[in-house]
Amino acid sequence: MKLLVINPNISGDVTDLIESEARRSIRSGTELTMATAPFGVAYIETRAEAQIGGYAAMQIAAECHADHDAVVVAAFGDPGLSALREILRIPVVGMTEAALVSACQVGSRFSVIAISQRIQAWYRETIAACGFSDRLASIRALDEPLAHIGRIQEDQGERLVALAERAVQDDGADVLILAGAPLAGLARSVASRLPVPALDGVTCALHQAQALVDLGAAPPTAGSFALPPEKPCKGLPVALARLVGRDIARSVTPVG
Amino acid sequence: MKLLVINPNISGDVTDLIESEARRSIRSGTELTMATAPFGVAYIETRAEAQIGGYAAMQIAAECHADHDAVVVAAFGDPGLSALREILRIPVVGMTEAALVSACQVGSRFSVIAISQRIQAWYRETIAACGFSDRLASIRALDEPLAHIGRIQEDQGERLVALAERAVQDDGADVLILAGAPLAGLARSVASRLPVPALDGVTCALHQAQALVDLGAAPPTAGSFALPPEKPCKGLPVALARLVGRDIARSVTPVG
Amino acid sequence: MKLLVINPNISGDVTDLIESEARRSIRSGTELTMATAPFGVAYIETRAEAQIGGYAAMQIAAECHADHDAVVVAAFGDPGLSALREILRIPVVGMTEAALVSACQVGSRFSVIAISQRIQAWYRETIAACGFSDRLASIRALDEPLAHIGRIQEDQGERLVALAERAVQDDGADVLILAGAPLAGLARSVASRLPVPALDGVTCALHQAQALVDLGAAPPTAGSFALPPEKPCKGLPVALARLVGRDIARSVTPVG
Amino acid sequence: MKLLVINPNISGDVTDLIESEARRSIRSGTELTMATAPFGVAYIETRAEAQIGGYAAMQIAAECHADHDAVVVAAFGDPGLSALREILRIPVVGMTEAALVSACQVGSRFSVIAISQRIQAWYRETIAACGFSDRLASIRALDEPLAHIGRIQEDQGERLVALAERAVQDDGADVLILAGAPLAGLARSVASRLPVPALDGVTCALHQAQALVDLGAAPPTAGSFALPPEKPCKGLPVALARLVGRDIARSVTPVG
Amino acid sequence: MKLLVINPNISGDVTDLIESEARRSIRSGTELTMATAPFGVAYIETRAEAQIGGYAAMQIAAECHADHDAVVVAAFGDPGLSALREILRIPVVGMTEAALVSACQVGSRFSVIAISQRIQAWYRETIAACGFSDRLASIRALDEPLAHIGRIQEDQGERLVALAERAVQDDGADVLILAGAPLAGLARSVASRLPVPALDGVTCALHQAQALVDLGAAPPTAGSFALPPEKPCKGLPVALARLVGRDIARSVTPVG
Amino acid sequence: MKLLVINPNISGDVTDLIESEARRSIRSGTELTMATAPFGVAYIETRAEAQIGGYAAMQIAAECHADHDAVVVAAFGDPGLSALREILRIPVVGMTEAALVSACQVGSRFSVIAISQRIQAWYRETIAACGFSDRLASIRALDEPLAHIGRIQEDQGERLVALAERAVQDDGADVLILAGAPLAGLARSVASRLPVPALDGVTCALHQAQALVDLGAAPPTAGSFALPPEKPCKGLPVALARLVGRDIARSVTPVG
Repeated sequence: MKLLVINPNISGDVTDLIESEARRSIRSGTELTMATAPFGVAYIETRAEAQIGGYAAMQIAAECHADHDAVVVAAFGDPGLSALREILRIPVVGMTEAALVSACQVGSRFSVIAISQRIQAWYRETIAACGFSDRLASIRALDEPLAHIGRIQEDQGERLVALAERAVQDDGADVLILAGAPLAGLARSVASRLPVPALDGVTCALHQAQALVDLGAAPPTAGSFALPPEKPCKGLPVALARLVGRDIARSVTPVG
Repeated sequence: MKLLVINPNISGDVTDLIESEARRSIRSGTELTMATAPFGVAYIETRAEAQIGGYAAMQIAAECHADHDAVVVAAFGDPGLSALREILRIPVVGMTEAALVSACQVGSRFSVIAISQRIQAWYRETIAACGFSDRLASIRALDEPLAHIGRIQEDQGERLVALAERAVQDDGADVLILAGAPLAGLARSVASRLPVPALDGVTCALHQAQALVDLGAAPPTAGSFALPPEKPCKGLPVALARLVGRDIARSVTPVG
Repeated sequence: MKLLVINPNISGDVTDLIESEARRSIRSGTELTMATAPFGVAYIETRAEAQIGGYAAMQIAAECHADHDAVVVAAFGDPGLSALREILRIPVVGMTEAALVSACQVGSRFSVIAISQRIQAWYRETIAACGFSDRLASIRALDEPLAHIGRIQEDQGERLVALAERAVQDDGADVLILAGAPLAGLARSVASRLPVPALDGVTCALHQAQALVDLGAAPPTAGSFALPPEKPCKGLPVALARLVGRDIARSVTPVG
Repeated sequence: MKLLVINPNISGDVTDLIESEARRSIRSGTELTMATAPFGVAYIETRAEAQIGGYAAMQIAAECHADHDAVVVAAFGDPGLSALREILRIPVVGMTEAALVSACQVGSRFSVIAISQRIQAWYRETIAACGFSDRLASIRALDEPLAHIGRIQEDQGERLVALAERAVQDDGADVLILAGAPLAGLARSVASRLPVPALDGVTCALHQAQALVDLGAAPPTAGSFALPPEKPCKGLPVALARLVGRDIARSVTPVG
Repeated sequence: MKLLVINPNISGDVTDLIESEARRSIRSGTELTMATAPFGVAYIETRAEAQIGGYAAMQIAAECHADHDAVVVAAFGDPGLSALREILRIPVVGMTEAALVSACQVGSRFSVIAISQRIQAWYRETIAACGFSDRLASIRALDEPLAHIGRIQEDQGERLVALAERAVQDDGADVLILAGAPLAGLARSVASRLPVPALDGVTCALHQAQALVDLGAAPPTAGSFALPPEKPCKGLPVALARLVGRDIARSVTPVG
Repeated sequence: MKLLVINPNISGDVTDLIESEARRSIRSGTELTMATAPFGVAYIETRAEAQIGGYAAMQIAAECHADHDAVVVAAFGDPGLSALREILRIPVVGMTEAALVSACQVGSRFSVIAISQRIQAWYRETIAACGFSDRLASIRALDEPLAHIGRIQEDQGERLVALAERAVQDDGADVLILAGAPLAGLARSVASRLPVPALDGVTCALHQAQALVDLGAAPPTAGSFALPPEKPCKGLPVALARLVGRDIARSVTPVG
């Protein structure tokens, strides 16, 4: 099984974190291709950054998905997730959605531990769009400037654990989601200190990707995830144009 | 990995169907223990039957879960699912919930194809309790007496496919869930005739069980899925009394 | 009018509390039959215990309902309520549901005062299943070990009143539900100290049972509360087997 | 026990229908005072008419509630219901709410049978405001001009039964609410022809009123149903001014 | 363009506040007619007062709307709003609804700053009825007796600003609604001190009224906002009787 | 007042339609700048196309918004809307949201008339994300291949009117939204043939944009629509990089 893992942001060190945790998670025999966004921002905190990251994910997926069995979008908030599901004919998994469906099978209500105050609105809206608002006990977030996105766990580990403990104690969380690719691996390293299961988005995403590949469901030819109806397009990167507008000659000038 | 698969009903031939499909689904190295309810009804169509089946599932799980890595409740409607999650310290997966979380990662809205008119209310309430009502496009069900619960696929296969087609065409389903243990395997056998992915509850449950075991989250010592507080009990089967009331001598008379 | 009041738990002293309060509530001419579960736990705090209590309630009801005009399930959380409604042809009332529908006719938002921290998740899910989550102002609960389930009112009365006051002051409750059979009678004894109406589940249940008997609606022969379709069953107590599987000879061995 | 039954509309013959059915429903010892709106419309089909009827109900209640134990608002849609609950210190029951809480204790989903197409929007919004939308299977309504509001049952009885049958068959109703004061008594007269329980709003309201009086909850001095804070008022009928603005001399000119 | 602005309460000084702020908001060429309720209360805090104010708004609108292009109901809680929309053939705008739709186009979640503790329940129910509960971050309210309804801004300005700041800081509000006609103009005067947009209900209502007049949609002849079906009425003020019961001679005695 | 109207798609003839209808709608003194996406697809039917269009809208807005008072995103589905609201300091209006808030002030429930079967899922999800699902009576859509996106009104006008009539008659719509920029102007041309108000998204958006500019709310410095926290970015067009990553030298290579 071969999985394409997309970091929709430009931070190579976060891609390394994701890869490191992903390699611990996968079954033997599963291969990974890692991809980092060629354009965009360091990490996604806002709707605007998610809009950029989602488009970056589409470009990467269009260019790199061939010969893979599934795609993982490795940023919390799942930028571009449903767009990718429409244009690819293989399973596409998002970190948030995978963590949510895992959390729901482990407990009733979950809390999300996040890296910044600002990021909470975007997380809340993502969780709502996935349909899990009723099970959200709380989002608790760091309230410190992030000196280095690739080193949050070292810099803020204790604070993150303290937020997690309060989510269980005060908010009634049955499960914790330590959210965001920059926290990849933290759930594992602090699990023994927390009184409820702590989930890692990257790990959940990899396991769900494997499960969906195993499931082997055929891609749809009807419904809202059939390929988009063909239509004129222009100015899209060639690989993306092939998927969206498909055989249309106009689509060759890379503009973006 | 060793999984305990519980049929909370008394139909041995349905257990065989479940086992047959489960064995196709699991990874090499995964072992299965099958268990059939010693008391109860032939299959669950109603809340009353689910109440009985849920209690049967608790008894079976209490007696048989030792040495297993996860438990699968193999009846649509997931009788006893959250009860089992409270008293066992290993992952517990339900057919319905597993199918729902799989469906959500494949499409936006799903339809459920069911074996009888009466069963629809129970399914609708289960889906609501899982929190997925907003994504339910429709439930469509057979309207024929069920001559033999172990042979519905042979007897009613064409009718079931026709219901599935209407769910896609008229109700806007992106995904189909062919629901109920008696339909185990049908999704696979008719997949090529359906225009959207068709999911089998047994298969989804097995894949989710493997994913949750792989995830390896520690059991909770806080929150609403920690072990129930100890309290007096009586008249419960010994194995169950040990889990629920734990060390209490009074609990030895098997009454039921 | 003759009402069967079922305590789905094994605590005889709680049954006594229920009976005492019930006898104050009923109209002259209403007769009560009290029944205590022959198996199960001392009181229900969790989903697992409710699953057991629900099955116990089914057995008691099957054995004892004859010659009664209605059944009351006298445990908060209403274990087995909808199951009983399917198999009996007389009204079945639950303490929680009766308290909720009464509360809604008295105010807009209600708070529930509960006997333990752990019980809150189960109460929250019951209220959600009844469809009243939007009107729930808060659940506030004791945070002390319960020395003796039959003497909570004496031991914790002041703490319970303090919780109730905070629910009104801080959470915006228009009505209070003092929840759980072990609190039967407390609403009456502390009413004069509380600034909003305080409801007792047992009392509400008795009044609703009388109202439903007076209403005299015919039992359904269609819809999801018609009798479950006949099907094979085995290993059920005889009385229950008659209701669920009805005329099937196989159902005679009492196993449970 | 003495109940004030308010018809918030001007139709004396509908008041007679209500009274006739109410007298069949009440327990011996319960007395009724009937009141018909001195101003307003013949029956309520719209939000505008409900706004008028609600104000009429306030005036009648203010003038007539003394010496009564509870008030019943006897028009579907419950015009003025929560307003009355704020200004009176006795229980106030609405036909719709009483029918809804009764229906919920009899089945899971209900349908409403209504007297005109136009009335459906107002009913739907009332049910939503009561918080029961999720349990509404359907509203089905006559599509004929109403020649005489006091004789709908005679004129349209068969059509109403046919609508009820379709609600059970096609919409999945477990219970039927035959809605609107002009249908008072119909549930009783056609019950034997319908396969699920059929509820009469007047009867439900009377039974709930008796249950709430029996419950004897003290009126609130806090929360949102305490008496409205005193404030200047003018131009209100004296009795209403006393309740709303209380001791304010300015309130004496009856203007309306 | 000519707009009728109705204060459904009797406070002339609040009407002056509304007018003053309205005149700052309107475009040149827009004319205003101000109307104050001839009967009712000083300001609306409760459901009961809203019921009265809504009926007063209907009477004023019936008498004064001729020759106007739209009507504005200038009390938070929008008393009578949907009733007016049914009986008038010109746009009708409510302060609350206009503020809510404006807030939603400026941010994701909003808080409401209110003048009294008691008023919160009525505001919460209004926001729910408008369908915006999910976007409500909080309601924060003064907890002081209101000495003079026309001078709250002077008396309580600093406290209101402090509440607004907490709503942003602690509750996650993206937008603030300074609610209630007595606060007309406050948003403008304190805007520079608040870190998120602060909306004034009167101003929002005037702008939405102008936008709806510009939109020029034809009044409905079908659906639930077509004119109510003609029916007998009596005792209504002549102008209102003409709109509700229309040509019916009985409707001439002004009673109210 | 100067408004930037962005067509996030590449169809110049649709931009012309939008402009033509927009010029009819605006007040004298309002100036328009029209912009068409330099890359993307002909029109948006799917989530994938919306992801592309949203990014295109961000690029256009970044480059062209200077000296404008507000921005209008002129495609149904509002691609990029909340992203733009985060990075611009002027009001941003979306066609869908503007139509929805207008519809809600005109009636209670609305139907959307759409140009293709496939587009319905994307519309439904947009309406849900805006929070208006409960008011959606139906979406009805053409089921014909679209020969020329700029000429749908001529080619399919009668079919669209027929769909609208069915939405009123069968689905209970109080208001119609004729959705999608390619239908700009249709509401006006067919209004007289429809029994309920028919809204045009472009017109609604222009009126809301004017209203929001008139409202003059200050841009936020807190909350989730303050400018995104500064962070490294790369590969973004210069104008967009300035808004998102702001002063970062790395952001100069246009990649996209």
